[in-house]
Amino acid sequence: MGNEKESIEGRARKVASAGGDQDIKYETSMIVRPDFGEIGGVFVSNEHRNEVFIKDIILDGLPTGKLILTCKSWVAWQQRRLFFTNKASYLPFQTPGGLKRMREAELVKLRGTGEGERRKGERIYDYDLYNDLGQPDKSHDLARPVIGGKERPYPRRCRTGRPRCKQDRLSETRSDYMYVPRDEEFSEVKVSTFSSKAELLKIRGTMKSLQVAFDSDLSFPCFPAIDSLFNEGINLFPTSSSSSGSGLLGFFPALVNQEIDLPGLEMKSLLDKHLPEWPLKSELDPGIYGEAESAITKDMIEQEIKGFCSLDEALEQKKLFILDYYDLFLPFVSKVRRLGKRTLYGSRTIFFLNPNGTLRPLAIELTRPPMDGKPQWKRVFRPSWDATGVWLWRLAKANVLAQDFGLRAHCCTEPYIIAANRHLSAMHPIHRLLRPHFQDTLEINAIARQTLINAGGTIEQAFSPGKYCLEISSAVYDKLWRFDHQALPKDLISRGMAVEDPTAPHGLKLTIEDYPYANDGLILWDAIKEWVTDYVNHYYPKPEYILSDNELQAWWNEVRNVGHGDKKDKPWWPKLNTPQDLIEIATTIIWIVSGHHAAVNFAQYGYGGYFPNRPTITRIKMPVEDPDEEEWKTFMERPEEILLETFPSQLQAASIIAALSVLSEHSPDEEYIGQMIDPVWEEDPVIKASFERFQRKLMRMDGVIDERNANEKLLNRHGAGIIPYNLLRPFSSAGVTGEGVPCSVTI
Amino acid sequence: MGNEKESIEGRARKVASAGGDQDIKYETSMIVRPDFGEIGGVFVSNEHRNEVFIKDIILDGLPTGKLILTCKSWVAWQQRRLFFTNKASYLPFQTPGGLKRMREAELVKLRGTGEGERRKGERIYDYDLYNDLGQPDKSHDLARPVIGGKERPYPRRCRTGRPRCKQDRLSETRSDYMYVPRDEEFSEVKVSTFSSKAELLKIRGTMKSLQVAFDSDLSFPCFPAIDSLFNEGINLFPTSSSSSGSGLLGFFPALVNQEIDLPGLEMKSLLDKHLPEWPLKSELDPGIYGEAESAITKDMIEQEIKGFCSLDEALEQKKLFILDYYDLFLPFVSKVRRLGKRTLYGSRTIFFLNPNGTLRPLAIELTRPPMDGKPQWKRVFRPSWDATGVWLWRLAKANVLAQDFGLRAHCCTEPYIIAANRHLSAMHPIHRLLRPHFQDTLEINAIARQTLINAGGTIEQAFSPGKYCLEISSAVYDKLWRFDHQALPKDLISRGMAVEDPTAPHGLKLTIEDYPYANDGLILWDAIKEWVTDYVNHYYPKPEYILSDNELQAWWNEVRNVGHGDKKDKPWWPKLNTPQDLIEIATTIIWIVSGHHAAVNFAQYGYGGYFPNRPTITRIKMPVEDPDEEEWKTFMERPEEILLETFPSQLQAASIIAALSVLSEHSPDEEYIGQMIDPVWEEDPVIKASFERFQRKLMRMDGVIDERNANEKLLNRHGAGIIPYNLLRPFSSAGVTGEGVPCSVTI
Repeated sequence: MGNEKESIEGRARKVASAGGDQDIKYETSMIVRPDFGEIGGVFVSNEHRNEVFIKDIILDGLPTGKLILTCKSWVAWQQRRLFFTNKASYLPFQTPGGLKRMREAELVKLRGTGEGERRKGERIYDYDLYNDLGQPDKSHDLARPVIGGKERPYPRRCRTGRPRCKQDRLSETRSDYMYVPRDEEFSEVKVSTFSSKAELLKIRGTMKSLQVAFDSDLSFPCFPAIDSLFNEGINLFPTSSSSSGSGLLGFFPALVNQEIDLPGLEMKSLLDKHLPEWPLKSELDPGIYGEAESAITKDMIEQEIKGFCSLDEALEQKKLFILDYYDLFLPFVSKVRRLGKRTLYGSRTIFFLNPNGTLRPLAIELTRPPMDGKPQWKRVFRPSWDATGVWLWRLAKANVLAQDFGLRAHCCTEPYIIAANRHLSAMHPIHRLLRPHFQDTLEINAIARQTLINAGGTIEQAFSPGKYCLEISSAVYDKLWRFDHQALPKDLISRGMAVEDPTAPHGLKLTIEDYPYANDGLILWDAIKEWVTDYVNHYYPKPEYILSDNELQAWWNEVRNVGHGDKKDKPWWPKLNTPQDLIEIATTIIWIVSGHHAAVNFAQYGYGGYFPNRPTITRIKMPVEDPDEEEWKTFMERPEEILLETFPSQLQAASIIAALSVLSEHSPDEEYIGQMIDPVWEEDPVIKASFERFQRKLMRMDGVIDERNANEKLLNRHGAGIIPYNLLRPFSSAGVTGEGVPCSVTI
Repeated sequence: MGNEKESIEGRARKVASAGGDQDIKYETSMIVRPDFGEIGGVFVSNEHRNEVFIKDIILDGLPTGKLILTCKSWVAWQQRRLFFTNKASYLPFQTPGGLKRMREAELVKLRGTGEGERRKGERIYDYDLYNDLGQPDKSHDLARPVIGGKERPYPRRCRTGRPRCKQDRLSETRSDYMYVPRDEEFSEVKVSTFSSKAELLKIRGTMKSLQVAFDSDLSFPCFPAIDSLFNEGINLFPTSSSSSGSGLLGFFPALVNQEIDLPGLEMKSLLDKHLPEWPLKSELDPGIYGEAESAITKDMIEQEIKGFCSLDEALEQKKLFILDYYDLFLPFVSKVRRLGKRTLYGSRTIFFLNPNGTLRPLAIELTRPPMDGKPQWKRVFRPSWDATGVWLWRLAKANVLAQDFGLRAHCCTEPYIIAANRHLSAMHPIHRLLRPHFQDTLEINAIARQTLINAGGTIEQAFSPGKYCLEISSAVYDKLWRFDHQALPKDLISRGMAVEDPTAPHGLKLTIEDYPYANDGLILWDAIKEWVTDYVNHYYPKPEYILSDNELQAWWNEVRNVGHGDKKDKPWWPKLNTPQDLIEIATTIIWIVSGHHAAVNFAQYGYGGYFPNRPTITRIKMPVEDPDEEEWKTFMERPEEILLETFPSQLQAASIIAALSVLSEHSPDEEYIGQMIDPVWEEDPVIKASFERFQRKLMRMDGVIDERNANEKLLNRHGAGIIPYNLLRPFSSAGVTGEGVPCSVTI
């Protein structure tokens, strides 16, 4: 623990293949004199022409016993890497003197200089804007604005440093290789046996060839044709002779719960909130967007709910809920509509909480702002008993469902990871706490930039806002995202879905008692929080350690001021002054990348794969919005044709189903939350005990979830043909299972 | 006009084919002395070995001008038939003396002796019970009780006089030939170019061969398989290698408005009635059928309607309606269920009249009486927002829809026809008034006895009550049928669907203003009534003529005391003392066989062809009725499987669709109401003018119906994807058109 010593060298030689797998063992002998002091780390240099993956280093024959260094990292040719022992985690000021300089030097290396293009195999973590989604040099249509910055706030991505575009000096050129730091690349197992990356890239290829062969606007000719997509695979396209891509995707998993009639909007959205006041009013400028007052009247609401209570009582008793996409989407309506063959509305949907705990939609208001010389158009749709009303209600539901796609957890998480690698040493206890929750995320985000959210990618093609998808995502980030509300309890409270109540389980009384996401989520949240509390209190036995931990402070400082710098001045940023602060921050991050992401992501195929249930796009306006004679006639005579034209095209549906089936799949080496203990923690009996308590809690969740799904009173998770709520069940087998909470955002 | 003269004879010889058709002209010459008096009729004898169809006889060269006899009837070999001239219709006491005896003699012949088996070609009209539907000699399963008589009241059918069965002396044996009087057989055109008869017999054959090849209980495997029935024809049966019948039926007409989710129950039923009082209570013996009080509570109703009014206000304002199959079906439940693979409930369905004039179902109560040692079971189903509730509501709707098949107009009409032919001479004006409305009915009824309502026929196979179909039909006749309420205005008043209001159009104020059947029907009713009024007043200038018209009195006497003899003592039978009485009776009969039958019959394929909209049978009980663990598990995991098992089997669906497509088809020679004037009426300027006024009124209906179907306020007949209400549009082209009011029950 004294000063830095000169290091002792040895040359390792290949001994044998170790065990049945492909691991290879190298050995060397070195003499360590008694005055060397405790061994803090090992440098590894690689003289092979290829990079080498170092799994672990075992030092045997020492008087203190066997010493292990778990490395799990790559060493490139001629690179000299430092690995620390598993013996302990050190806060910066606790670092043994012999390691101090190396600890700092390593972080400096990882931060890089902010210059140059990043090459495969490098380990540099740095920030950049989302300026690599478009291809302005290829065509004007593929130009995209930079996302991130004052005008379009957004979290930062990992810097790649490629050359700028000629047509737009603010944009970075794209290439087939998308840099991520070497340790962020998928594991060998993932790449070879499963490979989401390969799957996603295959979809891209298939879609491209399909696009060449087919009119991309082609609607499904009839409802049975939609079913055949699932029963007979994707080979449903009518004139497939010339398509080399046809049939490539093969069959899609059969889906339960297919219903032609769009099912409820209930409980699936995580943006639902309690309706706190009446009347509804927009905050947008009426001069631009038209009348701000909602057309949903008290009478409309009371006609439906008067058998239970008045509007005032319902508000008072928190029985009214709203899904509000009005202020968010209205500013994009005219832009999106000009893209052609897609539509958009500002929308407000009101729900009533039935006495049995289910939500019942009462009204949907769709609004088009003034555009093209026409005034604002709006109309309220309600459940109906006349044919036209029934069809309009169906179409209005499709329009709302198409807006209900969440802000992807991916982009918001990237800054935590970049900052952690730049400022928290590998031997920092918080680095070790968070590391499993950052696994594979930078890589999957890079793939998403490559094939999903790029200009002309799957998301733009198949989601209503088209090329404005990322801009809307930025607007959502701007208007809705705040770090503190990412914590599940605060999320629920902020949406009016819960109030604090010290006497209730988890300290919260839910507004909708049977709210599966909240009920299961809170168990998981509490388990995470307990584990993090034990952990933080163990490594920060004195509260003042937090402020004196310069790595930790630098990390949090960069998360706020750089990674999420577009929102750095918001008053809601938590301080990081006490262990309590750290516990809340770390729990929030772990919850978002594990439980929250799982609840959102793995629901996608089950709830959204059968797209009539949850279309990603609506392609034509409501037939009652300024129809010409021809349009109206079609609607009156063949309303199902209007519905099929409203739904995704065949190409869009196929590409979305293909993407969702990949995105909803667990890889065989998926690591679930609480599944694997870090070798470093195993060395520390206190942490080991805490982690095992955490594991037991998670295992008990399985039984609790079984019990709840079997409870006939919990109508939002139990019922005929209902998909039981398994999304927050911690463990899962591989494949599309609709359950399992991975440690991190891996897909 | 004096006494009967000796007739003048001549032998007719074939002259030429007349015109382009296959008519053949015969000629003869006779000398008529001036003292012969007015010619009243012509006897025709046939010396050909084959029967001969006499279209008309033209007497030329008389001082009074050309004299025409329109015969349209068959003369058998060696038969001597009397045809009367078109010159006039005569009440019995007005008959020219020279014809009096012949008029009576002809009627005596037509009545027959009530003895012996009827042979093809005979012209005898007589009565019998429905005792020829079963085949007790073939198997015990095919034995059926006699329908008609005290125990199972029913109208009479046309007597065929076949031998009795050995196993059941009350039953008549069946044979391939089903006697109808010669003039009641279908016209040549109908038999050769279209032939409902051939179609229906073909269905029978096809069904028989399909039955041999397939398990008749096989459900549809999935919803797309139902669609393929319409898109790809009937060849959907899975293992069709051995089936010679497979594919025989080919394609079915495409159907508009296919919806997987069962649509409303609204407005389609003609048994809907205004709910006059609360609470609902059965009149059945609680000792046998269990608690008589309905489980539908005031609270249940008010939860849904309180936004508009209270239950009391709704009752007061006639806003609640009921479809009540409780007392009717409950007594059959245990019997029907014992047949296996079919179920039945007593049911009550409550509707609320929305402010926009549409009906909204509030609750369905299904009841099983005590049986097999179990107590009464009942449950109320309501529109729901939880998955189980949604499926149960769907299943409950299917059960109610399957009960909503009307009492066929066919059987009730047969007695009017038999009595008219037995007692009203061909020269009686009322015979001539009614004759076009009796066309083809005895024949189609005979075919129905042969292939549809017979033991094991299509109806028994494919409708819920199975072998008890006719017994339930008898119960409906017993409980609901009364002659006076067959008149449309009285029908509407008796069901609470209208109240008398001299200031309103047609003198009625409708409870549901937009009730297409009533609105269009009343125009047709009024037009018929005006025509009948003119006609009756013309031929009965003095009121006392009615009572002194012995043929008319004998006709009405026999309708009441023989044809409908099982209800002869009911107080509601109209007297026949005045022209007013006759006008009401004749208008009622004409309305029932024209407008009413058209509204019921030609809706069948359009509304019921896509059977998920309107299943004819439910095959398994509700999953909440005493489920065992296995059943409940299936329902919770795969509720769509329960729905498909509830629906008709593949075989039942195919046979019903085939039958409905034939039953809903107009033949190319269909005669529509008001289309053709009787040659006799053309000779009388007053009647001719009346008839032409009638015709003009009917033609104007076309425009009125267009106007109404285009009226956006009339939500029960206008709307997206709604089938416009064309059922009472008087004229139609051939085929399945969903419009056109034939003169008579021809299919």
